[in-house]
Amino acid sequence: MRLRNNPRAYDIMKDNSDLVILDPIQYKSRFHELFLNDNPIHIEIGMGKGDFIYEMALRNPNINFIGIEKFPSVLAAAINKVNKKDKLDNLKFMHYDAIALTEVFDDHEVDHLYLNFSDPWPKKRHSKRRLTSSAFLDVYKKILVNEGKIEFKTDNRGLFEYSLISINDYQMNLDYVSLDLHHSPEMENNVMTEYERKFSVNGPIYKMIVSFKKEKENG
Amino acid sequence: MRLRNNPRAYDIMKDNSDLVILDPIQYKSRFHELFLNDNPIHIEIGMGKGDFIYEMALRNPNINFIGIEKFPSVLAAAINKVNKKDKLDNLKFMHYDAIALTEVFDDHEVDHLYLNFSDPWPKKRHSKRRLTSSAFLDVYKKILVNEGKIEFKTDNRGLFEYSLISINDYQMNLDYVSLDLHHSPEMENNVMTEYERKFSVNGPIYKMIVSFKKEKENG
Repeated sequence: MRLRNNPRAYDIMKDNSDLVILDPIQYKSRFHELFLNDNPIHIEIGMGKGDFIYEMALRNPNINFIGIEKFPSVLAAAINKVNKKDKLDNLKFMHYDAIALTEVFDDHEVDHLYLNFSDPWPKKRHSKRRLTSSAFLDVYKKILVNEGKIEFKTDNRGLFEYSLISINDYQMNLDYVSLDLHHSPEMENNVMTEYERKFSVNGPIYKMIVSFKKEKENG
Repeated sequence: MRLRNNPRAYDIMKDNSDLVILDPIQYKSRFHELFLNDNPIHIEIGMGKGDFIYEMALRNPNINFIGIEKFPSVLAAAINKVNKKDKLDNLKFMHYDAIALTEVFDDHEVDHLYLNFSDPWPKKRHSKRRLTSSAFLDVYKKILVNEGKIEFKTDNRGLFEYSLISINDYQMNLDYVSLDLHHSPEMENNVMTEYERKFSVNGPIYKMIVSFKKEKENG
């Protein structure tokens, strides 16, 4: 998601240090100290205005949620939106680029990962920027627990086709796939993003749940 | 595809022994003697009334095509339909059950395999009957040349979702996928089945091209 530049974006982050993790690297390997509990950590990469992760945090108080966004203006919009709702102790935001998340999270520190309506980067020469390309999968594999799951949904056919091939090439498990989520039994528990609510009338929403194969133990 | 039982189906096969391979096992490992050339062999499993394979044979005279159908009445309908068209030396039909094709084809005797609008067998307890289940993949792996491709298309969402997971579990290569073939660049070279022509107005046609990973050589 892109938004018009908000010159106050960084100020809004600083003014909301209870919600925004301003210096996330200091919490590497000890995010439980931030949340004051040992609950699992779920992250959303590219959280947009945060509707999805807020609703997930509301429904799942025993899971810690971290929404990650690389565009300051988008993060600022999410902060302003969340501030109008009830405060949730299990929800934090972070301004970071996904490709560098191993700086923030220790190996296997994250339990579950969400990618919702990621930028499709339709041009072939930009394919490495797609959040399901192998460079990003390398990052997710490192920070996710063994057999931790990635849930990915999009309305972009090209991105979903690309992602099916990417995860297959990476020899990941394809645990679930729906080519029309809104007409699948799993729709019952689907938490919609703001984008999804608006655009699902135009065509199918695709979803996959994938995981990395369990690493063989040595010896 | 199912059709009302045609009591003359077996007679129609016997009356067309130039087109129908009546005793296919005798040609195992020497189908080139049947076609009188060493051209590659492409097979379609579940060819229905044969529109697709006839058109493929017409367009590709240097490839030998064998259409395989397990329902005699369907095969009889295909024979009657093909007999109204120009005879093609590179097209043969066969009455056989796909699960037993290793009786007919030697290891790596087949170059390419097509599955078009296969029976979806929607009930979970029938999933092993789907032509992309692991028992069938075992057969295809044996009869196909190394890295030989399987082209699969269907309008059935459930079957396609199942197949994506099945080929991923089998650790096959996903060489190509389209979630809306009729709005993809590859549509230009698409040969339609009679079913596809009729039903593609109702929703997307899904297509994948897959192959088995190259076997590691010993030593």
